[in-house]
Amino acid sequence: MIRPARLRDGAGIALVAPAGPLPPGALERAVEQVEAWGWRPLPGPHAAGSHHGYLSGRDEDRLGDLQAALFSPAVDAVWCLRGGYGTMRLLRRIDWRPMLERPRPLIGFSDNTALHLALVRRGLVSFHGPHAAADPFPPFTGERLRELLVRPEPAGVLPLPEESGERPAAIRGGAAEGPLVGGNLALLAATLGTPDALRAEGAILFFEEVGEPAYRIDRLLTQLELAGVLDAVAGVVIGGMTEVPIPTRDDIPPVREVLAGRLHDRGVPVLTGCPVGHIDEMWTLPLGIRARLDADAGTLELLEAAVR
Amino acid sequence: MIRPARLRDGAGIALVAPAGPLPPGALERAVEQVEAWGWRPLPGPHAAGSHHGYLSGRDEDRLGDLQAALFSPAVDAVWCLRGGYGTMRLLRRIDWRPMLERPRPLIGFSDNTALHLALVRRGLVSFHGPHAAADPFPPFTGERLRELLVRPEPAGVLPLPEESGERPAAIRGGAAEGPLVGGNLALLAATLGTPDALRAEGAILFFEEVGEPAYRIDRLLTQLELAGVLDAVAGVVIGGMTEVPIPTRDDIPPVREVLAGRLHDRGVPVLTGCPVGHIDEMWTLPLGIRARLDADAGTLELLEAAVR
Repeated sequence: MIRPARLRDGAGIALVAPAGPLPPGALERAVEQVEAWGWRPLPGPHAAGSHHGYLSGRDEDRLGDLQAALFSPAVDAVWCLRGGYGTMRLLRRIDWRPMLERPRPLIGFSDNTALHLALVRRGLVSFHGPHAAADPFPPFTGERLRELLVRPEPAGVLPLPEESGERPAAIRGGAAEGPLVGGNLALLAATLGTPDALRAEGAILFFEEVGEPAYRIDRLLTQLELAGVLDAVAGVVIGGMTEVPIPTRDDIPPVREVLAGRLHDRGVPVLTGCPVGHIDEMWTLPLGIRARLDADAGTLELLEAAVR
Repeated sequence: MIRPARLRDGAGIALVAPAGPLPPGALERAVEQVEAWGWRPLPGPHAAGSHHGYLSGRDEDRLGDLQAALFSPAVDAVWCLRGGYGTMRLLRRIDWRPMLERPRPLIGFSDNTALHLALVRRGLVSFHGPHAAADPFPPFTGERLRELLVRPEPAGVLPLPEESGERPAAIRGGAAEGPLVGGNLALLAATLGTPDALRAEGAILFFEEVGEPAYRIDRLLTQLELAGVLDAVAGVVIGGMTEVPIPTRDDIPPVREVLAGRLHDRGVPVLTGCPVGHIDEMWTLPLGIRARLDADAGTLELLEAAVR
C-alpha cells in the first residue's frame, strides 16, 4: 500500500463536501479547527452549498471541488466536511491520477466510505476518521486523527476514550492480523457489484452503522455474506451501531444479538463496541494498513505507520 | 427460459412464508383465496410462526417449508404469503434442483425478489405478483395473476386498473423489447455482488419501492448504475414508489424527479406509474418472459406465454 506524506506545520487542507449539505456554521467551525492545528484551510468554493435538499451541490460542483483539490499543488490533504449521501454519484467521474502521482491523505467516513474504497482499490492508504465539520469535535477524536497524519510510526494499540458508554467486548474471541478494510455498513453493501467494491481477503473488516433497524443490519450483513466478504475476512471490528426500535413490534432483538447471530460462527475473532463511526469520541482507522485484532484483550493495534 | 406447466383445477398450492411473520388471520385468508379459485391450499407447517420479531421462523423452519414444497409431488405452485425480510438468509442453502426437474410457478414480490432472481439465474420463469395473504386482494390483482398461471398464451397488452390514482407516464419516450427482469429496488441492489445478482443485458427492467426516502432511491439507482445494470437495459418500467418525506427538510424533490434525474438521459424508454409492487391493484409480471414496452403509448405487452 502506498502511504501519503506526513502533514507538517502549515500544510494545506482542502475542505470539501462531496455528499450532503452542511448545517449553518459548520464550514466556519471546520476552518477554525484546521487553523487551530497550525494548518491552512482551503475550503472548496461549493462546500457550503445545497441542492435538492440532500446534496451539497450539483454533481458538477461537488466533483469540481474534489477534483480541484486533487489537482492543486497547494493541497496536502483532503478533508471531507460531512457525509449524508452523494459521493457514489461522483465515483465514475473522479480522476484519481493526481493522488497516485502525489499521494495525500483523504479523511472522512459514513457516505465517504465510497471514496476510501476507490482509493484502497488503487493501492492507496485512506483515512476513516472524523468529518471536519463534526460538532462536537472532542480532543480524543482530534488526537487520534492528528497523530496518524503527522507521525510516520505505527500507532500501536489504540487507546479508548476515558468516558465511553460502550466498551469493546468479544462476540467471538481470538486474535488475527491483516490489512484494515471497511467503513459504513450500508455503503460497503451499496458498492458491492461495482468496480470499487470492497475486497476483504485476509483483512480485518471494520464497520459501523447508524439509523438502520435490526432487519436492515441483518440484510446488509447477509449481502456481505452472499458476496463472499464474510468468508474472506480474518477478523471483524464493529464500531457504533445505533438501536432503531420498530414502534409496532416489541420482540425485535437488540442489534448486538443480530450481529452475534450473523458473525459468531465463522471461526474468526469479532470485537464489538469499538469507538468507530457515528459517535463523538472515535478512532481514525487507516484503510490498507496492517492491524492486529485481539478480541480477548479487546484491543486493536496498528502495526504500520499510516504516513511516510 | 423454461416455463412451468399451467395450473389446472385442483392444483396443489404450497403457502410459504420465507421472510417476515404474518399478521393474525392472514394464513386463513390465503387458504380461502386459494380454495375460491378451485385449488388446494397446502400451508407450510411453520407459515404462521414468528421468530426474532422480523422473521416468520428460524432459518431451518423457513427453509424447511420452502424446500419441502419444492420436493413435494403434490405441489403445483409455490405461493409466498408475504415479504418483509428474511429470504436472502436462505439463498445459499436452497436446493433448486426439484424446480429444474419439474418447473412450477413461484409467486411473490418485495423481499421474495431474491427467490425470483435465483430462479431466473437458473433459466426458469418466475412470477412477480401478489402475496397470498394480501389484504385487500382486489379482483384486478387476482385476475392478472390467475390468467398468467392458467392460460398458455401471451397475455398481450396488460390492462390498467379502472380506478388507479396514478396512470403510466413516460419519463422518456420510445419503445423497446426484451425479457422482463426486476423486482423490489432495495432487493435488486441487495443482491448485487452475489451469485444471484440481477442480469439485465437487453432486458426490460422493472422495479418498485416502498418506504425509502428520496436519497435512498437515489443511492439504490446509483448502485445499479455503477454495477452496469442501467447501461445494459433496453427499457425501464417503474411501479409504485412511495413518497417518504424527511420531516426536517422541505426542499427534498419528489421521488419522480429523482427517478427522472437518474434515468432520463440513458437513451432508453422509461415508463413510470405502472401498477406493480406495493399497491393493491397490481400486475403480475413473469420474469424471463419477453415483453414490449411502449413508453409513448404507456403500455407494457407480454409477448410470450408464461406457462406451458
